[in-house]
Amino acid sequence: MFKATVFVTLRESVLDPQGSAVRGSLHTLGFDEVGEVRIGKYMQLEIDLNDRAAAEERVKEMCEKLLANTVIEDYRYELQEV
Amino acid sequence: MFKATVFVTLRESVLDPQGSAVRGSLHTLGFDEVGEVRIGKYMQLEIDLNDRAAAEERVKEMCEKLLANTVIEDYRYELQEV
Repeated sequence: MFKATVFVTLRESVLDPQGSAVRGSLHTLGFDEVGEVRIGKYMQLEIDLNDRAAAEERVKEMCEKLLANTVIEDYRYELQEV
Repeated sequence: MFKATVFVTLRESVLDPQGSAVRGSLHTLGFDEVGEVRIGKYMQLEIDLNDRAAAEERVKEMCEKLLANTVIEDYRYELQEV
């Protein structure tokens, strides 16, 4: 069994309105040292497979098909045996 | 200058309906090996400070005040000098 951690982030060239809003709120609260803010997703999935290569392949497929929108998002993942 | 990476996750005891929905969709797509799915946020912030201890202190304050809802969420962060 593996625990997969998937990070999905907007591509560099894509505007991040949610990040801009958070930055604005941080400035309003007095955190003027904050520059660019980018917001992404962080997903933890239990994968009930015993072979690491198979698990990697399946997680990649999940990212491509559902977890990330690869037109505007990048993804990366880590697998940890549990 | 530092780059702060903040991870915000729902506490273990809190239900994650978004995670359950993603799990359901993955099963529908044939990924039956997927067990529990938990979804969190992943934020990258530029911090325009030169002192690491000061930057840590400020990021912690941002998490407590705005980035995480500490009633239902946990957070952790990493600082990288850039």
